[in-house]
Amino acid sequence: MKSVPLKRTRKAENKPSEKPQNEDVLLRRIRRALQTTHSAAPQLPLNIGDDAALFKPSPGYETVLTCDWFLQGTHFLLDRHPPYAVGWKCLARAASDLAAMGAEPRCFLLSLALPLAKTSDWLDEFLRGLRTASRKLQCPAAGGDTTRQDEVLINITVVGECKRGRAVLRSGARPGDAIFVSGRLGEAEYGLRLMQKHDDSIDPKDFRLTKHLYPQPRLRVASWLANRQLVTAMMDLSDGLSSDLPRLCTASNVGARIAEASVPCVRLAEPDAKKFDPLFLALHGGDDYELLFTVAPKHAASIPRKIAGVNLTRIGEITAQRNVVVLIDRANHRLSLPARGWNPFRSNP
Amino acid sequence: MKSVPLKRTRKAENKPSEKPQNEDVLLRRIRRALQTTHSAAPQLPLNIGDDAALFKPSPGYETVLTCDWFLQGTHFLLDRHPPYAVGWKCLARAASDLAAMGAEPRCFLLSLALPLAKTSDWLDEFLRGLRTASRKLQCPAAGGDTTRQDEVLINITVVGECKRGRAVLRSGARPGDAIFVSGRLGEAEYGLRLMQKHDDSIDPKDFRLTKHLYPQPRLRVASWLANRQLVTAMMDLSDGLSSDLPRLCTASNVGARIAEASVPCVRLAEPDAKKFDPLFLALHGGDDYELLFTVAPKHAASIPRKIAGVNLTRIGEITAQRNVVVLIDRANHRLSLPARGWNPFRSNP
Repeated sequence: MKSVPLKRTRKAENKPSEKPQNEDVLLRRIRRALQTTHSAAPQLPLNIGDDAALFKPSPGYETVLTCDWFLQGTHFLLDRHPPYAVGWKCLARAASDLAAMGAEPRCFLLSLALPLAKTSDWLDEFLRGLRTASRKLQCPAAGGDTTRQDEVLINITVVGECKRGRAVLRSGARPGDAIFVSGRLGEAEYGLRLMQKHDDSIDPKDFRLTKHLYPQPRLRVASWLANRQLVTAMMDLSDGLSSDLPRLCTASNVGARIAEASVPCVRLAEPDAKKFDPLFLALHGGDDYELLFTVAPKHAASIPRKIAGVNLTRIGEITAQRNVVVLIDRANHRLSLPARGWNPFRSNP
Repeated sequence: MKSVPLKRTRKAENKPSEKPQNEDVLLRRIRRALQTTHSAAPQLPLNIGDDAALFKPSPGYETVLTCDWFLQGTHFLLDRHPPYAVGWKCLARAASDLAAMGAEPRCFLLSLALPLAKTSDWLDEFLRGLRTASRKLQCPAAGGDTTRQDEVLINITVVGECKRGRAVLRSGARPGDAIFVSGRLGEAEYGLRLMQKHDDSIDPKDFRLTKHLYPQPRLRVASWLANRQLVTAMMDLSDGLSSDLPRLCTASNVGARIAEASVPCVRLAEPDAKKFDPLFLALHGGDDYELLFTVAPKHAASIPRKIAGVNLTRIGEITAQRNVVVLIDRANHRLSLPARGWNPFRSNP
């Protein structure tokens, strides 16, 4: 066979057909980094790389689907956030949406757009972090899409399952229900502000940054609660309590009253105690990925203080006053709680 | 109740809690535009707007999942492509990945990042195009994620189903199989080049742009073929025949020989006949979203000339020479077919 290129083709494109195409090479690297064995992914009958991914649903379960942006400049800083942490966090925060429904993750799709300059070391570290999260969360990669772009853009789709009819919605809270949160609030915001304050001088391994860089979706807590049908409504705290609690109230057509003294606030390290207000961080800080859930009065006492090592704290009650969210301060004053959490479309941030 | 803001909050953030949050307002608009009735989306038990979407899988089916970037500057031009067409195309091309597997679409998730300036008229028109595609393809919206960004970024996840074990992969082609394509190739590239050539002077309603702006995923053709188990391998032509056929060959561990005279090329309108080469457009043009599929010799005669109004054309045979893709020209010369289709990571485009 004469291996000549088509006569009519343009010269600039005249490359031998044997030369591997860059996009395909990149896809193979991603596939290799994220590929799992069949025993680790029994519901994925197909390797990554066909036109679409296949998923075998479990009988008696519903499929739970979520997708989540993670964008350079908006959600992380390319020069400040370690690529390993970017890889971890993009999957962890998407999986948190499944926890919010009481669902268990099954697989994910990665959509990745990145500049040529980031296709080497940066990509390797990113994939290492993503793979670590994927194993930890038992959520193998099923497929994805890759393209080139000037900035690093990530979108993660996570597929999960929950028993039929058992998904916990935001809309089930009723007046009188007790309001709980998991963990301590404001820890992620504390880390973010330290990073912003210290420019390059803070070590990404500093323990105060852990929650900001490596959030833990509360999957075990959520499935414990969902399996026992103890909660009436649940969501994850991604934008901050002052933004997310009103959303739960709107969905449930109720209001809420929380007690300042009950909110489990971030504990500040000694030198930071004068610089930050823990209550402000706890009420308005985003990115904690803790759970916010409500429990009927008769079940409130059945909620343990800890599940899987994570504290659960009662912070208030659901009220009948639609969309009115009230904070009772330590002097017993009723204050309205304005939303000040993360909102990308706020006009004066 | 005293409606005073928290004492410790910063002044710049001091806004009354009654003021609707912009992101929530935007989400409501998107939800309203894309919401469907329960009868139009029987497998979606939940309205858009909870932490994640719920999907009820059909017994005896597998779930098919794909995600697809559609990015300003890379996949469309904000000042040239009508937002209605952007809305149509982002869903149509993602659904084409399901056609490639022989699957039927069930629902989609929209991830949308956009600048504040595009949240008004542009968004309305985009949603109108997306809704039209959603209805036409019987693929209702299940959920999504929205954020703010300087450029318009779109990622679409489409969820489909195919009967258990019936998904058509890229890897099933065997030497001797006949190679077919649907439709005419190069039509989308023709439209793209006209747009590039004419700057603002070409009317987006010009019929020559139709395939570029409003591609039609070949869902009916694909499910006809898959249901009869007539095809051994299938994929959609998104990057061009010269890029995609080698991918099918690699996945199947085979080679291919196609005949120039058999390739159904784009028909050029009279004034363009001297400016473009239809064969070049057909071999290397991307974005057609036609089907490429292979058929065992004994079934080749069972493939009709048309399915659902779409022509099917036999263009060559699968060979045993791994990864060798050959074009037989009209003078009966064997030429290697170098990949020149769309590849975002090509270093010298």
